[in-house]
Amino acid sequence: MKRYLVVCLYDGTDFCGWQVQNNKRSVAGEITKALSAFHKKPIVIVGAGRTDQGVHAEGQAFHFDSNLDMTPKQYMKALKTYLPSDIQIASIKEVSNDFHARFSAKGKHYRYIINNGKYNIFNRNHEVYLPFKLDVALMQEAAKCFLGTHDFSSFCTTKYSEKEIQVRTIHSITIGEDRGIITFDYYGDSFLRHMIRMITETLVEVGKGKLSKEEVLIMLEAKTKGVCRYKAPACGLYLMRVIYEEN
Amino acid sequence: MKRYLVVCLYDGTDFCGWQVQNNKRSVAGEITKALSAFHKKPIVIVGAGRTDQGVHAEGQAFHFDSNLDMTPKQYMKALKTYLPSDIQIASIKEVSNDFHARFSAKGKHYRYIINNGKYNIFNRNHEVYLPFKLDVALMQEAAKCFLGTHDFSSFCTTKYSEKEIQVRTIHSITIGEDRGIITFDYYGDSFLRHMIRMITETLVEVGKGKLSKEEVLIMLEAKTKGVCRYKAPACGLYLMRVIYEEN
Repeated sequence: MKRYLVVCLYDGTDFCGWQVQNNKRSVAGEITKALSAFHKKPIVIVGAGRTDQGVHAEGQAFHFDSNLDMTPKQYMKALKTYLPSDIQIASIKEVSNDFHARFSAKGKHYRYIINNGKYNIFNRNHEVYLPFKLDVALMQEAAKCFLGTHDFSSFCTTKYSEKEIQVRTIHSITIGEDRGIITFDYYGDSFLRHMIRMITETLVEVGKGKLSKEEVLIMLEAKTKGVCRYKAPACGLYLMRVIYEEN
Repeated sequence: MKRYLVVCLYDGTDFCGWQVQNNKRSVAGEITKALSAFHKKPIVIVGAGRTDQGVHAEGQAFHFDSNLDMTPKQYMKALKTYLPSDIQIASIKEVSNDFHARFSAKGKHYRYIINNGKYNIFNRNHEVYLPFKLDVALMQEAAKCFLGTHDFSSFCTTKYSEKEIQVRTIHSITIGEDRGIITFDYYGDSFLRHMIRMITETLVEVGKGKLSKEEVLIMLEAKTKGVCRYKAPACGLYLMRVIYEEN
């Protein structure tokens, strides 16, 4: 039995999300179906993490075990045959049997895309259009509040028991603008449910001049679920890369 | 009763085409439904021309008659309320009662987009990806064959009786490349069914070095349906603009 790490892209528009759900079209469900088809038996995949309905990926990762005598290139070809056009395999490689797509992950890179220029109907599911001009410098300044290690309870919807800890570390947030497209890049160890969408929408409020850096700090320091009521839409969010030791 | 000219955009991906078809989702059908909803009676629209399943528009035009006492801005707002997100209204203006979206049209601009660079899963329905490098200069040279007035019988699938004439005039074909994206712009008086997709795919064959300019000329001069077996996919094609006298 050999273990394989797969990196994939998907257009999240027509999926209920990464995770398998009854009677719904999920990314993991489609991949499982494709792998099971040419293995001729049920294959289980383990993702690096979930993405919500409408969220895209340019670098989601998962592992699976197989005893077929195939090269990564052959797996790639077989998967391509069975996968729908909104899922694409970027790479497949053999890993050691103690590698785990979720537990071996050292960090993640997410990107959020806002179109602050001219509305584009063809990108409506792949970016968020905002007609009012955002102040990028203000957002960059406020983003510093989130850097480092914090209890992000105020900026997540993760269901948790008292035992679970909502402490996470964000290594960097880079906000840039190129011809009306504002890109938010987040690097962190891991992220809580809706955390990036809530932080992004909070920064957008700052960029509109509706929220000050001080108010953002108060929200963060409250460490209380429900304090942040902002959440950017799913379709602007991309899981860009899952970072493992070796890469 | 006043007549209005509307310019609209649509993402053709999820439509059976412009024209209403039984039990299918068409662009004209959705617009008719929207107009009829706030007119509270059936409204007929007349399009400048049809587009096929999967073909997009950045400037399709149609007219409709209305006796509601509304400004173009109010029509715009009402339509926006009722239209799905894959149809967008660019402009509405009152025109004279003898204006006709189809018969008053002086010309059309179509664009075809080929991604000759890196595959982009998010644009898979909005461009055609070709991995082999195309020779743009060869395509530009061969495109000259089609300029001017010709019998385009070889380059269409229009059903016709002997009486109907397959003569059309192409004013210009511009082919350009920008960072791996090859754009074909066609300006002409009007185009036959599948004409632009067939010409584009023929030029692509030239760009691959599989077809010479001389062979293209032979095909054109044959003036015989079925001579050209090439047809580029629908999803790369955009109706950019319908040209009327005044604009």
